[in-house]
Amino acid sequence: MTTDSIDAEAYSARVLDLLARMTREEKLAQLVGFWVDQGGEVVAPMQGEMASSGAYEEATRHGLGQLTRVYGTRPVDPLERARWLRDEQRRLIAETRLGIPALVHEECLTGLAAWQAATFPTPLAWGASFDPALVEEMAALIGGSMRDLGVHQGLAPVLDVIRDPRWGRVDECIAEDPYVVGTIGSAYVRGLQSTGVDATLKHFVGYSASQAGRNHAPVHAGPRELQDVFLPPFEMALRDGGARSVMNSYTEIDGEPVAGTPRWLTEQLRDVWGFDGVVVSDYFAVAFLAIMHRVAADRGEAAALALAAGVDVELPTGDAFLAPLAERLEAGLADEALVDRAVLRVLAQKEAHGLLDADFAAEPEAVDLDSPAHRDVALRLAEESVVLLANRDGLLPLRSPARVAVLGPNAARAEALMGCYSFANHVLAHHPDVPLGFEIPDVLASLTAELDGAETVFAAGCAVEGDDRSGFDEAVAAASGAEVAIVVAGDQAGLFGRGTVGEGNDAESLDLPGVQRELVEAVVATGTPTVLVLLTGRPYAIGWALEGAAAPAAVLQAFFPGEEGGTAIARILSGATAPSGRLPVSIPRAAGAQPYSYLHPVLGGPSEVTSVDPTPPLAFGAGLTYTRFERSGLEADGDVRAGGAFTASVRVRNAGDRAGTDVVQLYARDVVASVTRPVAQLLAYERVHLEPGEEVVVRFRVPTARLAFSDRRLVRVVEPGAIDLWVGGSVAEQETTASIEITGAVHEVGAEDERLATAEVERAVPVD
Amino acid sequence: MTTDSIDAEAYSARVLDLLARMTREEKLAQLVGFWVDQGGEVVAPMQGEMASSGAYEEATRHGLGQLTRVYGTRPVDPLERARWLRDEQRRLIAETRLGIPALVHEECLTGLAAWQAATFPTPLAWGASFDPALVEEMAALIGGSMRDLGVHQGLAPVLDVIRDPRWGRVDECIAEDPYVVGTIGSAYVRGLQSTGVDATLKHFVGYSASQAGRNHAPVHAGPRELQDVFLPPFEMALRDGGARSVMNSYTEIDGEPVAGTPRWLTEQLRDVWGFDGVVVSDYFAVAFLAIMHRVAADRGEAAALALAAGVDVELPTGDAFLAPLAERLEAGLADEALVDRAVLRVLAQKEAHGLLDADFAAEPEAVDLDSPAHRDVALRLAEESVVLLANRDGLLPLRSPARVAVLGPNAARAEALMGCYSFANHVLAHHPDVPLGFEIPDVLASLTAELDGAETVFAAGCAVEGDDRSGFDEAVAAASGAEVAIVVAGDQAGLFGRGTVGEGNDAESLDLPGVQRELVEAVVATGTPTVLVLLTGRPYAIGWALEGAAAPAAVLQAFFPGEEGGTAIARILSGATAPSGRLPVSIPRAAGAQPYSYLHPVLGGPSEVTSVDPTPPLAFGAGLTYTRFERSGLEADGDVRAGGAFTASVRVRNAGDRAGTDVVQLYARDVVASVTRPVAQLLAYERVHLEPGEEVVVRFRVPTARLAFSDRRLVRVVEPGAIDLWVGGSVAEQETTASIEITGAVHEVGAEDERLATAEVERAVPVD
Repeated sequence: MTTDSIDAEAYSARVLDLLARMTREEKLAQLVGFWVDQGGEVVAPMQGEMASSGAYEEATRHGLGQLTRVYGTRPVDPLERARWLRDEQRRLIAETRLGIPALVHEECLTGLAAWQAATFPTPLAWGASFDPALVEEMAALIGGSMRDLGVHQGLAPVLDVIRDPRWGRVDECIAEDPYVVGTIGSAYVRGLQSTGVDATLKHFVGYSASQAGRNHAPVHAGPRELQDVFLPPFEMALRDGGARSVMNSYTEIDGEPVAGTPRWLTEQLRDVWGFDGVVVSDYFAVAFLAIMHRVAADRGEAAALALAAGVDVELPTGDAFLAPLAERLEAGLADEALVDRAVLRVLAQKEAHGLLDADFAAEPEAVDLDSPAHRDVALRLAEESVVLLANRDGLLPLRSPARVAVLGPNAARAEALMGCYSFANHVLAHHPDVPLGFEIPDVLASLTAELDGAETVFAAGCAVEGDDRSGFDEAVAAASGAEVAIVVAGDQAGLFGRGTVGEGNDAESLDLPGVQRELVEAVVATGTPTVLVLLTGRPYAIGWALEGAAAPAAVLQAFFPGEEGGTAIARILSGATAPSGRLPVSIPRAAGAQPYSYLHPVLGGPSEVTSVDPTPPLAFGAGLTYTRFERSGLEADGDVRAGGAFTASVRVRNAGDRAGTDVVQLYARDVVASVTRPVAQLLAYERVHLEPGEEVVVRFRVPTARLAFSDRRLVRVVEPGAIDLWVGGSVAEQETTASIEITGAVHEVGAEDERLATAEVERAVPVD
Repeated sequence: MTTDSIDAEAYSARVLDLLARMTREEKLAQLVGFWVDQGGEVVAPMQGEMASSGAYEEATRHGLGQLTRVYGTRPVDPLERARWLRDEQRRLIAETRLGIPALVHEECLTGLAAWQAATFPTPLAWGASFDPALVEEMAALIGGSMRDLGVHQGLAPVLDVIRDPRWGRVDECIAEDPYVVGTIGSAYVRGLQSTGVDATLKHFVGYSASQAGRNHAPVHAGPRELQDVFLPPFEMALRDGGARSVMNSYTEIDGEPVAGTPRWLTEQLRDVWGFDGVVVSDYFAVAFLAIMHRVAADRGEAAALALAAGVDVELPTGDAFLAPLAERLEAGLADEALVDRAVLRVLAQKEAHGLLDADFAAEPEAVDLDSPAHRDVALRLAEESVVLLANRDGLLPLRSPARVAVLGPNAARAEALMGCYSFANHVLAHHPDVPLGFEIPDVLASLTAELDGAETVFAAGCAVEGDDRSGFDEAVAAASGAEVAIVVAGDQAGLFGRGTVGEGNDAESLDLPGVQRELVEAVVATGTPTVLVLLTGRPYAIGWALEGAAAPAAVLQAFFPGEEGGTAIARILSGATAPSGRLPVSIPRAAGAQPYSYLHPVLGGPSEVTSVDPTPPLAFGAGLTYTRFERSGLEADGDVRAGGAFTASVRVRNAGDRAGTDVVQLYARDVVASVTRPVAQLLAYERVHLEPGEEVVVRFRVPTARLAFSDRRLVRVVEPGAIDLWVGGSVAEQETTASIEITGAVHEVGAEDERLATAEVERAVPVD
């Protein structure tokens, strides 16, 4: 269909008939959500002021598009709520004229946002695992729980490409590389949707480039950066993942709010990519066109703008799409055909979910939202995502120490293991008397259990925030009396001023919050070998901890690893498992050196024309383990005509005496191009487990379309010319190199081009 | 003419005939510079490697386009060099086949870059003066000196709009407001060109938005920001100032290097604006297309790209436009017609300067490059540009103190008064044994002379850079024994790693360099009333100095005030003159809060969706004086149809007991627009001197085109709707407010629209 007329053939007769029978009120009712728990504690900043104040029954008199956060707004017993929901759907069927039930959406980023549900690692940890298959498993478990509870749509994944670690929502993002975001994000989509639950790609588009990392601040970006960095993960998740819903970005791009222009939600999404699902607004984003962006005089004008832009459903409630839009339609200032366009999409989505035939006869059953399967995946993903940043003198794994000091503000706090959209930090933070509802051993407890026989002594030393150093002495004393000190530091995730990272918790500094660096330095100064364990939602400027006199002997970086994160960290410290995560983001040099991305052209890095060197202390892709890998013999051949695919093979050998997992990373650099290109780009990656002494050949098949970019016409092309390739322990290590020459004519990339590299691992030397 | 064919009618028969007679070698020779002093000390980073190595005579065998920096590369006696230059021009006439002399260009930002020439305040100080007329006077003096020495073109002014104070070249820029840049920049152009010397607008375009303030780093900006923020000063300086040359920006914008795309240097500059002068490359910028941007494989391809983009003359030498371009032309890989296009422009410029008829018969005469007229303007501009940021307890002006401690690393250094493109800091820094060649009393000397009868005691306390605190004790002792302490701190300007600000000296932190803050705090702690005098090239994060226990009683901000800067500061401290400068840039909160501009939409400032508040400690336009002004009764009326002009009048009263000068600032906010608009925008300004008790009416005539912006079609328009207006002591003070309603249809802004607001001051109450 085109963007402003309805293609009747795209919809069933039933849906078209429903539309034809609808009054304007019934149509608008389908285009909004209703937040049943709005009177409770505030979990989103505007919830109090913005939510419609009409009573629920009145608000649903003409039907309802979506029910908003039925499970994730306050702690409710899931089974009881499932029964309520079943009854409510039956009521909508029985008591509204057209008898259409509501679509139910919920947050589900690090697990279903519901009381007692499993909390998985945060997306940065998915990125660190470089393991799309495991993320897909996780998402299938999340989707299963949602389906069991009557939820149809999950507001995940976040596909924003990290551009500035100062932004608080970095902990909801996967990586600073679009391909990692796209592959892992698509895996999440496939997993979630395998259960029948719709994934929602967000935030489309550009949000993560908000100026200076300030949430909602203007995005300064041109069309090429948008096409080449921000769009690809969405294209992948739509075309390879089949995602069925999309949410707008709050931000403006170069002066135009995404929710108010057809450029992205219609022209790109539908006209170029052929998306036929539903676009939902981010919460309050429609009203924000008037009250924040000031591109509309009031909610009515905002509604008309958003509708024309391509927003189909206003969430969380109908602040703008109900009465204000109705008035505007009545006055002839908005296009009724655009209402019909959105309603058809909504009805088609409900039809696909079987909602037009549903009778909700079945009695909800108790479901285990944190089953052994959940915990198994949570543990494996946590283990795969912890990144060993430093390990001087082979301090790790620990060698059966008799006495261990476990220190730091994050050592004995389960909340420190979870991201900002976890139910615990998102909702339960407002209900301090309500228990978590599931098991989540903190690092101290896990380590005490893991280091059976060792005596553990604990002292927090300080809090995550604030400048209270009164606990330093106790921590220093504990360290002095121990064989090894483990300082667990980092963030507390939260929203809008509660916590140090998370939505609205942007940073002006990238130093560790509070006095935590001083605590680490005081512990290191005791001379006791020290391990710094970071539980954070963003990478911090920890160059001081990686090198120099004040540096601890070992540093372990975990990005909010979830309910089994404590266990995973303990098992890695003890050596029960070996670390295998890699940095999905650069460790930043300083806040004042931001923004920075590893995907920079020559002049985005150090150069002789600037005195500032933004080179990260540790590069994208870095991460150690307990053995040592050697990569060699990179070779590339095959069809390297522009538009073809080539093969790059590399030998990887475990040169140490322990088993381990390498994340084999193939990088490329387009040497000369018609526009500036990054000095490095991840082309392909593969996790490979190797026994001691084992050597394998990893063979990547790489479509040249992986090297595509927007040329001077803004057409995405593969250009002929030389490409340098390398494999190494991170983007910064060119351990083995090769180069190819792309031949032929310039190739224009289209929908039929492959977007994915694949890998096969040839185990030439069988291990006994 | 169109961009790729030659309009013969635009050129004289003589020029066309010359072109017709030229060999390819002769054409290319006209398109390059030659740097005669290239073997000397390096003043530009690439000079050594990049300059062509051919002997001068060989290089000029076919003629020469431009002579590069004849006076400004090393200290040479101006008269001797003028004679050499006269002889050289005669040699070119006599010994080259076509007998065309060279055009001579020189740097002239803060004065002619020549030994013994006057050094004026740096552009940030021009901005702080808000006095275009005085800047025009200054530029006329600079131009006169250049003309007298046989220089035809000056590489100034810099019209980059400040977007990030981390950038080292901020000291070469005028302001963070495009209108201030445009009005003052145009005044500079008019002044310089009134003497027959061509001004060169630079750097066209976008340079100041380099990522994270790193010099040459990629610019992330969309077309609207470019049109609405970066282009207007250039349009003003071309259309209102009549500038005759333009230099490209080094940077790429969204992946396309400016020097390699026709988008800016041809389509915008010539097709849209009708510019018919010469575009010169920034030094080495053509070769940078190959070696830095990597959009060309070699210098030949770089030359072809630059030529097609619209670069007419390669500076400083013919690295790319000579042999590499000749080879490419020979191979049929570049368009000879583009060479002709550039040559015609060059010949027309030479014709306009009379060079095609010149015989250079006249004997150069000795000229005073630092005459009393120079010093008078230098003093007045310095006085007008110093900004009083704080003055608690009325410490200033000083009340005949008996004993004054003059402290700080910039108190007794003349170099601290000059910007990075001053001859002293640009060239003499490499010749430590050569005297400055002109008088430049430092702050200590000036103050000692000004405070006749007071005993001054000096201690530097520390250096500008480094962490040596060994001088603190002496400074503290000196402060303790004095009635008042004056700490002169700040920057040392320089280039590429020499100094703390200037070209290539970007900053990751916006703290005062070195241990200067600690020195100030130690002095303040003595209890002696303390004045902090800042001599800097960028605004620093000095919130601590404006408020709180460690804050000095008074803070005076000077942006490198030039040869009479010491005198100006001393006269302001003593009260001989009153401060009247205003901040042309926001005082930043922190490096980690950058980029930030006062020209931000709602969400670019503090908001409830981010925990980071970027509000500057002192806002754009702020500045105190020794009296107090009251602004009241703002009224607006007149023709406010979109496309018309309206009048805004305000009463300004000197409510104190001393004479003083207010900079009356009219701000506006477009309440609702089709794209996001800044919450504040300077519409007009006027310096007004008022005697004690005097009240005037300042009446601004404001074309509504001052409120134009690029709409969703990227067409610059004035839209109907409400505009809030205010006048106050800075953008942050809405002392008196009004509003207007722009009426009528959307107005598309064209070349015929007025770009300038004007002011008249009605002195209703004559002063006796």
